[in-house]
Amino acid sequence: MKKALIVGATGFGGLGLIEILLRHPGIGIGQLVARKDVGRKIYQVFPHLTGFCGLTVQENSEINYSDADIAFFSTPDRAGMTLIRDFISRGIPVIDFSGDFRFHSTKDYSVYAKNKGMEDTHLAPEVLAGAVYGLPELYAGEIKKARIVGNPGCFAISMILGLLPAVQLGLVASEVIVCDGKTGVSGAGKNPGEANFYPQRYEDVNTYREGTHQHLVEVENLLNGAGDTKHKILFVPQIVPLNRGILITAYADAAPGLDTKKVTEMYREFYASSPFVIVTDKSPHTTDVRGSNRCEIRAMVDGRTGKLFITSVIDNLVKGQSGNAVQCANLMLGLDEAAGLMVPPFYP
Amino acid sequence: MKKALIVGATGFGGLGLIEILLRHPGIGIGQLVARKDVGRKIYQVFPHLTGFCGLTVQENSEINYSDADIAFFSTPDRAGMTLIRDFISRGIPVIDFSGDFRFHSTKDYSVYAKNKGMEDTHLAPEVLAGAVYGLPELYAGEIKKARIVGNPGCFAISMILGLLPAVQLGLVASEVIVCDGKTGVSGAGKNPGEANFYPQRYEDVNTYREGTHQHLVEVENLLNGAGDTKHKILFVPQIVPLNRGILITAYADAAPGLDTKKVTEMYREFYASSPFVIVTDKSPHTTDVRGSNRCEIRAMVDGRTGKLFITSVIDNLVKGQSGNAVQCANLMLGLDEAAGLMVPPFYP
Amino acid sequence: MKKALIVGATGFGGLGLIEILLRHPGIGIGQLVARKDVGRKIYQVFPHLTGFCGLTVQENSEINYSDADIAFFSTPDRAGMTLIRDFISRGIPVIDFSGDFRFHSTKDYSVYAKNKGMEDTHLAPEVLAGAVYGLPELYAGEIKKARIVGNPGCFAISMILGLLPAVQLGLVASEVIVCDGKTGVSGAGKNPGEANFYPQRYEDVNTYREGTHQHLVEVENLLNGAGDTKHKILFVPQIVPLNRGILITAYADAAPGLDTKKVTEMYREFYASSPFVIVTDKSPHTTDVRGSNRCEIRAMVDGRTGKLFITSVIDNLVKGQSGNAVQCANLMLGLDEAAGLMVPPFYP
Amino acid sequence: MKKALIVGATGFGGLGLIEILLRHPGIGIGQLVARKDVGRKIYQVFPHLTGFCGLTVQENSEINYSDADIAFFSTPDRAGMTLIRDFISRGIPVIDFSGDFRFHSTKDYSVYAKNKGMEDTHLAPEVLAGAVYGLPELYAGEIKKARIVGNPGCFAISMILGLLPAVQLGLVASEVIVCDGKTGVSGAGKNPGEANFYPQRYEDVNTYREGTHQHLVEVENLLNGAGDTKHKILFVPQIVPLNRGILITAYADAAPGLDTKKVTEMYREFYASSPFVIVTDKSPHTTDVRGSNRCEIRAMVDGRTGKLFITSVIDNLVKGQSGNAVQCANLMLGLDEAAGLMVPPFYP
Repeated sequence: MKKALIVGATGFGGLGLIEILLRHPGIGIGQLVARKDVGRKIYQVFPHLTGFCGLTVQENSEINYSDADIAFFSTPDRAGMTLIRDFISRGIPVIDFSGDFRFHSTKDYSVYAKNKGMEDTHLAPEVLAGAVYGLPELYAGEIKKARIVGNPGCFAISMILGLLPAVQLGLVASEVIVCDGKTGVSGAGKNPGEANFYPQRYEDVNTYREGTHQHLVEVENLLNGAGDTKHKILFVPQIVPLNRGILITAYADAAPGLDTKKVTEMYREFYASSPFVIVTDKSPHTTDVRGSNRCEIRAMVDGRTGKLFITSVIDNLVKGQSGNAVQCANLMLGLDEAAGLMVPPFYP
Repeated sequence: MKKALIVGATGFGGLGLIEILLRHPGIGIGQLVARKDVGRKIYQVFPHLTGFCGLTVQENSEINYSDADIAFFSTPDRAGMTLIRDFISRGIPVIDFSGDFRFHSTKDYSVYAKNKGMEDTHLAPEVLAGAVYGLPELYAGEIKKARIVGNPGCFAISMILGLLPAVQLGLVASEVIVCDGKTGVSGAGKNPGEANFYPQRYEDVNTYREGTHQHLVEVENLLNGAGDTKHKILFVPQIVPLNRGILITAYADAAPGLDTKKVTEMYREFYASSPFVIVTDKSPHTTDVRGSNRCEIRAMVDGRTGKLFITSVIDNLVKGQSGNAVQCANLMLGLDEAAGLMVPPFYP
Repeated sequence: MKKALIVGATGFGGLGLIEILLRHPGIGIGQLVARKDVGRKIYQVFPHLTGFCGLTVQENSEINYSDADIAFFSTPDRAGMTLIRDFISRGIPVIDFSGDFRFHSTKDYSVYAKNKGMEDTHLAPEVLAGAVYGLPELYAGEIKKARIVGNPGCFAISMILGLLPAVQLGLVASEVIVCDGKTGVSGAGKNPGEANFYPQRYEDVNTYREGTHQHLVEVENLLNGAGDTKHKILFVPQIVPLNRGILITAYADAAPGLDTKKVTEMYREFYASSPFVIVTDKSPHTTDVRGSNRCEIRAMVDGRTGKLFITSVIDNLVKGQSGNAVQCANLMLGLDEAAGLMVPPFYP
Repeated sequence: MKKALIVGATGFGGLGLIEILLRHPGIGIGQLVARKDVGRKIYQVFPHLTGFCGLTVQENSEINYSDADIAFFSTPDRAGMTLIRDFISRGIPVIDFSGDFRFHSTKDYSVYAKNKGMEDTHLAPEVLAGAVYGLPELYAGEIKKARIVGNPGCFAISMILGLLPAVQLGLVASEVIVCDGKTGVSGAGKNPGEANFYPQRYEDVNTYREGTHQHLVEVENLLNGAGDTKHKILFVPQIVPLNRGILITAYADAAPGLDTKKVTEMYREFYASSPFVIVTDKSPHTTDVRGSNRCEIRAMVDGRTGKLFITSVIDNLVKGQSGNAVQCANLMLGLDEAAGLMVPPFYP
């Protein structure tokens, strides 16, 4: 049984890891680290864990490096940069949930950081150089050997999984791809604020960061590395009164000669060996994947308009965050890719 | 004080009319007609109306034609076709909420009806010939003189108001316009079924009738009548766990030389005399319009991708249904277009 | 047209006042005062007010006392105590939403303040002495003459209206009355925090401050002043995933010889001249009153157990806050008690 | 591995069983039987089961009795009465979710049936005689030997678990106990109707069947069998806009000499060996138990009023239905009582 250490244990990312690792056959929870709630039992922070996890939340200074086989950093941008270095230098592999290690060069990182209005000097450039983008469906081989994996953004992973076959297989005839994204409120994290204020959100839909959302960079990077032509994404995120779930609708010109039947088959073949991607020919629902590590994708060609139309749904807290991270961890630790993750969605 | 007769008084469309007419300075509620709940007081059907409306629900056979200045038909497709004829033949103007009178020719109607899988022979062709599409922002003059007005579909009106300036002013460079539509659950009407089943809907988002929704026809008709070039719409409706509200995001190639500032100004000028359309430069929220007859629109040009990007929000039960109908009725009866409709949205 | 000044204009209490006064025939909005958002137009704070209210939020120091006929203080406990004094000393009547002026003596206030863990020295004792509890259904005469009215707590008003007839008319045989209260999330106000955090609240019900909620004091004071016997209330508040609305279920031993028919009649008679209280014999729903100033009450006697069982529903933001305050203001300004308040509930 | 047959597989009760048995170490799913959806794969009915369960829904006539070790009947009242007889006669133990086998005598059943307005002649009286009430916390020994178990109603189990220690240990001084119940919408089952109509329920709270809910009978039977004194329950159920979850608040006069500390200890001791009951001293939340087989209970004495006050929360679809049934099945099949049921609640 491998032992995991979780930094940022009291946020939704950390909680998601705890919930998955409690049922994981090969990875147990060794240490919980956070800034808030230090000294409290984790079930005092999350009462539903009573009887399931009795660990105490520790601070950074209490970390026992010799008792950790892998570390998850579910921390905000730049919060874990230097601490991660301490793990890597001790040979402990790390999966980071922020944008700190989603890029390969300090130059790319700088673009991302400036976009988000942050300080853009990377504090662990030697670690960055070996970072692998945590997309098991594309980089399983690299992840197996990686010391540091940058876990993708939740919107990014749903867009990438939806568009990757289209771009790699040459199904897209236009330069621009429109991604219209709908996310649940839990995507805004565990700190109360405007974005998760119940009286505002219980009956509201709105767009935000139209064309400028930070996940755009990693999606364009990934897709343009994957295909021959270069694509630009227009991404318009929207918040809907859902707690968990992301649904992406993506639109591009279809390459000549395609129809729904053909693209469905091509998508099915593309993801034939991906245990968590389901290619469907019915309308996807976020309830089809809620609480699971699945991504459900539908590909259609609209004959009237010649558009390729892709729908992709995930649970933003699982395949969009902690579930995908455990999938990466399984690969890094030599376990079955799906270990601990094959549970049916939670319904109704 | 004019007297209105409402057929289909016990559905959401009828209820919306009652709620508006209760505060209307120029139109009162004369008779309530429905198939269900005949003989019951309307406040027994809708308890929140207790003390505000004491009328009894009547059946068709009890209609007193001599006591009606205008009739609203909030009935399903084909349910009111022949009864409407009886009103028109007596000189009583009618506003119909179904698709029965949204077209000018039996040929167009036939296309629509076949699309919906219905019988396609129109039963009142002589009435159809004089029907006006109930879009006051474009057809105020025609509506003033109309005897029969076909009230637009809720998705249709939000798409049309969002796209009309773009098409008429030549801002769209592509043939195809993508409309990504999000609707609340009340759009499915007042009969319990799959589409409004709480355990399914409280935490679900899904697409449906992708590229084939029936409102598509009237939107293409309207827009292609309005501009020089012919456009095709790819419309993908989605249900989100919202009760009231529609948010449309529309995407097309922007004509050369445009930017967000310019298109915003053009939209503002276009709607300068439309009392219910607000052109904004912030992200629209459905809460900005809930419970009101407003349509809030934002127009942007995304420089990176060259796309024209339009957001349009309405309350599907007001501007998308009963509010728009009263706006038409005001014009038909020679009242101020905004009479009874200028109330702030309901928030929070 | 009287002019109102609103202190605390950017919270839910202030917003509720604005929404009501916008349609009020006798009271207009003169000045908006707040700590936050000073210098912004109110429609920038609440976008749904665009086109309806163009006033700028001012700070205390900008108040023009000579242009105010009445002042509403929708401010937290103790925040308005001394400023209210400035209004009273200038002869401007005040309605206060906090607990500062809900009591007649500094001794009673001290008990309340200590209960809430606050400083308990009252800063305007000379004003307190003349304060009237803002319950128009009981104190209309006193409110008409009052200079300072303490607007009741939202839970308090629903409990008092539900229990007042029972206690005054001697229908309660037991000393103790159990009040089980369910409230929507908007009751926690406009600042984001645990109590209105969407991911926690969208699918949760819980009890809190069991037997110790601060509204208890005013309810016991009021009821024990009203009847011959002294009652104790066990009040258990609960939060449910509702935005607006309070539903109270109250239980006590029924006095001998009562049945549901009799108590219903007695309640009806008791409230015969109260325009906003509806005594019903069907199950009350919060949707019966949402968005309105109504209180719907049902009184039953359970023959099997001999219990008197009362249900009372209000909209916590209207009859539980701003609507009740305007009702008081109408009385204080010599207007019709119901002016501006007779609008149907918002449904669905 | 034992094989289970599920009758009524396409309702929420059947679905809950499938979801639990998919992860159960000792009981697998053998056959799925229903009236609706016969011939369809279960994942076509419930898309989230895709890849997890490939069984086809069968009709009664296709049942293979020789391949079933236990049968679950998640069917409406009286729908399974005679079919259950066929299982019992073949020696196959049955757990029934309806009220058909919750009583020991045809006389008691008759009272229950008349209360619900149903035909009151029991069709399998010889089976009824051996029926055991499915409350493992009280009747584990009897359930182990039972051939037919009547699974309790969801409201009933939350009331009984909350009140059982109080009644058995003599903590209640009054004859009457008030139970104020709040339930989520999924309790109304899987058929769309008024009770689960989204536009009505998303923002509504209401009481219903006040003092006359059918679960009352089994609660009084059980409690009065358990203690020396006879108690009457006044039960007032309420629907809140929650999908899953029940929260009961119960009130009675406390016996002399009790305080919160004492009753908490007595409750803890009472449930010391019950793996799914948690006695807590914090405010219970339905989120503490959502998706789990837990019942969380808090017992308090309110010193001011002398009332004993109990809060009890469960997930109505798990401990209130399928989870409790599997707990009974474990006992009947000689497995560990908690097998397949020890999963943490689903949060957030």
